[in-house]
Amino acid sequence: MAETMTGAQVAGLQRDYVMQSWSRQGTPALPIARAEGIYFWDYDGRKYADMSSLLVCSNLGHQLPEIVEAIKEQADRMCFMAPAYASEPKSRLAKMLVDIAGADFYQRVFFTNGGADANENAIKMARMVTGRQKIFSCYRSYHGSTNGASNASGDWRRFAAELGGMAPGYVHFMNPNMYEDGYTRGVDDEAVTRDYLHRLEEQLQYEGPDNVAAILMESIVGANGVILPPKGYMEGVRALCDKYGILMICDEVMTGFARTGKMFAWQNFDIRPDLITFAKGVTCGYVPLGGVIVSKAVSDYFTDHVLQCGLTYSGHTLACAAGCASVRYYLDHDICAHVKRMEGILKPFLERMVERHKCVGEARCIGLFAALTIVRNKETRELMAPYHAPDSVMPRIMARLKEKGFSTFGRETNINICPPLIITEEELNEYLPILDEVLGWVDETFCD
Amino acid sequence: MAETMTGAQVAGLQRDYVMQSWSRQGTPALPIARAEGIYFWDYDGRKYADMSSLLVCSNLGHQLPEIVEAIKEQADRMCFMAPAYASEPKSRLAKMLVDIAGADFYQRVFFTNGGADANENAIKMARMVTGRQKIFSCYRSYHGSTNGASNASGDWRRFAAELGGMAPGYVHFMNPNMYEDGYTRGVDDEAVTRDYLHRLEEQLQYEGPDNVAAILMESIVGANGVILPPKGYMEGVRALCDKYGILMICDEVMTGFARTGKMFAWQNFDIRPDLITFAKGVTCGYVPLGGVIVSKAVSDYFTDHVLQCGLTYSGHTLACAAGCASVRYYLDHDICAHVKRMEGILKPFLERMVERHKCVGEARCIGLFAALTIVRNKETRELMAPYHAPDSVMPRIMARLKEKGFSTFGRETNINICPPLIITEEELNEYLPILDEVLGWVDETFCD
Ligand SMILES: Cc1ncc(COP(=O)(O)O)c(C=O)c1O
Ligand SMILES: Cc1ncc(COP(=O)(O)O)c(C=O)c1O
Repeated sequence: MAETMTGAQVAGLQRDYVMQSWSRQGTPALPIARAEGIYFWDYDGRKYADMSSLLVCSNLGHQLPEIVEAIKEQADRMCFMAPAYASEPKSRLAKMLVDIAGADFYQRVFFTNGGADANENAIKMARMVTGRQKIFSCYRSYHGSTNGASNASGDWRRFAAELGGMAPGYVHFMNPNMYEDGYTRGVDDEAVTRDYLHRLEEQLQYEGPDNVAAILMESIVGANGVILPPKGYMEGVRALCDKYGILMICDEVMTGFARTGKMFAWQNFDIRPDLITFAKGVTCGYVPLGGVIVSKAVSDYFTDHVLQCGLTYSGHTLACAAGCASVRYYLDHDICAHVKRMEGILKPFLERMVERHKCVGEARCIGLFAALTIVRNKETRELMAPYHAPDSVMPRIMARLKEKGFSTFGRETNINICPPLIITEEELNEYLPILDEVLGWVDETFCD
Repeated sequence: MAETMTGAQVAGLQRDYVMQSWSRQGTPALPIARAEGIYFWDYDGRKYADMSSLLVCSNLGHQLPEIVEAIKEQADRMCFMAPAYASEPKSRLAKMLVDIAGADFYQRVFFTNGGADANENAIKMARMVTGRQKIFSCYRSYHGSTNGASNASGDWRRFAAELGGMAPGYVHFMNPNMYEDGYTRGVDDEAVTRDYLHRLEEQLQYEGPDNVAAILMESIVGANGVILPPKGYMEGVRALCDKYGILMICDEVMTGFARTGKMFAWQNFDIRPDLITFAKGVTCGYVPLGGVIVSKAVSDYFTDHVLQCGLTYSGHTLACAAGCASVRYYLDHDICAHVKRMEGILKPFLERMVERHKCVGEARCIGLFAALTIVRNKETRELMAPYHAPDSVMPRIMARLKEKGFSTFGRETNINICPPLIITEEELNEYLPILDEVLGWVDETFCD
């Protein structure tokens, strides 16, 4: 398709004809002309550093030749073959994913189109395997916006899916946010972990642990602010699952594929989930793809029982080819090691921001997965944007960053910093000072 | 990616590592090496005519150069830009879809990844716009397998989504199947339509029409056997919607994009749905894409209210480029007219099958969307496979067709015939005799 439209035309059609997620319609959207590496450009030639990997999906940056070539080669060969047939990209990718998760414990992959339907299918499987109904999940979480994934989500994006009445069988529990809950004021991790696990076990008992099919958790809470769990917490949840015969589902949609310096974020803890959901980084968003990696035990159940799950594009050929190229790139270039090196720059920088700026309450960083908690008052820990506040100044802060070429997002009172994992030391050193500068402006403009 | 695996290796990895939809795991799957036009080939070089367009999605056949080229060009340019930004393929496709639906009545498109999440989002929108909860849908239907779409579905694939308890607000009503319900024994369409509409209105009244957000229907029931509605039925449903302020959602996932000889199947009736869901044919499956086209009235609601819907890949750039190429091809080559011409061959042929074979109870055909009802006894109308029968001979019939190079599927007691819309007269004349032959074998082997 020859590029024949101007930026104004592209933006005009978007404004008039596209239904825009989580927005009022008719609001202007910036038209983007091209993207490469960690950058993208608008139609006026303005360059933006993509410091959030779009929605934390462009893990290997934009237009990586290895993935683009794989897509083009597969497009020439065979774009799509139906789920009932075997195709080379699907077969290859399934094995690669089982291998990176651990072939001693994991067995099979069910492919979906994205993150929401990955969680939908994991939930269905957990219910089928256990014969139990309830799904426990965290208030501080997001798992997608289809009915099941949305009911499992904890943040307010869940409410719209509850308009017809909340789907039955979803139970939410509160997961710790050390800073916002005040625990980093001299309370140690172990004490908080003990307390939260105690409360979770209590809630399980009052819900009847024999009724609980699965505990679904983001390995590290992402969209709600890169919330690092206190030490021992994830291991404790796993122990509760084992104690009560509950399956553990780790949502790796945002954290998977080297984001935290491991191929999956749960590999930072001493646990193995029974089901792993993934999307985003598996293809870096180049072609839509998601799925569920299941343990041998879960897989074995479905050799005796019919898997009551399906979708037209399960194991989509072109998407799996993009997935193979992506996973191969992570491994061949040891992206995990590079991420760990870059963490060595990003993390100390963010810690300096906490010291230097009145508005930065806390910095959290693991790998290239990071967020700052923005506060109005560091002493009282008054957040810049209280939970689900209607009129927050946070969008103004994001806009100011973007004006200066630093593109990112953040929900509630957080600024997420999650650049493509291929970012170099030079690029970090070029762009992080912009963050420093804007935080200085926030100090002056919005802090007590 | 160089093709380096043998068919046996591809099949072996699929058997060991892929979770297969609606199946027991570990069962063999045929490995497919390539596809072109209406054909695909296995690794032994055996050729199959794709008489179902895979899952009724490959409307323009396999590897159409115009779509493949568009994918490759867009892959070189920009594979993905996040939903918040405008991009040329998304802007273009949204306008094209509104135009083919009718720009005097429709306004915007919300993009999803497939059919299930298209219906999920249409349901969410209908609830937001009306402030009502209940969704009416047909027993004889399939709308996808995520929690919301699955609860709306009527066939038994719904049951697995109900394991946690049926989602609230879903009400099913029985839609007519003229043959199976016995109405084609001398009862006229108008009488049946009157009767079914009366029953539907009665059920609406007992559910409280003011609680009903939407009636969701496949414009023509597809997977459950190309069930053509009796004359006036769809118009009557539309009238009930208007009478009670209920939104009408037409699911065009399977019927859309020239399948029935119109760009959308509802255009065969004198109605306009408020929301149209689509997937499959919009890209012919080359890249996953789905969505919802909404009326101006629905769109206007969301200029004043935040749309509480979203997904990472909404308006996926590569997928929309494939969509633009597909839609342009339908229009430029007047595929609707070609479909009408091919219907002129397929429909009389299928009618001859009814006359000629003991096992063919009824033939239904509109455009290149057709199914045969297979019966054990034509007199008594005993179906070859009663609804949800555990041990049906139907898979053996499908396998025999496939052995002879005629690949298709059918649920329950139906054989679907839905070839790619680019099929030629010569190709139809070459492959339809195989169906004739296998039906003869069915007569002898399974009929009374
Ligand atoms: C942790 C997590 N799970 C699931 C999802 C939903 O994925 P998708 O938007 O592809 O449906 C997201 C999206 O941001 C996510 O961050
Ligand atoms: C009418 C209809 N709606 C929805 C769907 C679900 O689409 P998907 O499999 O892309 O989720 C299908 C799938 O066959 C369908 O036929």
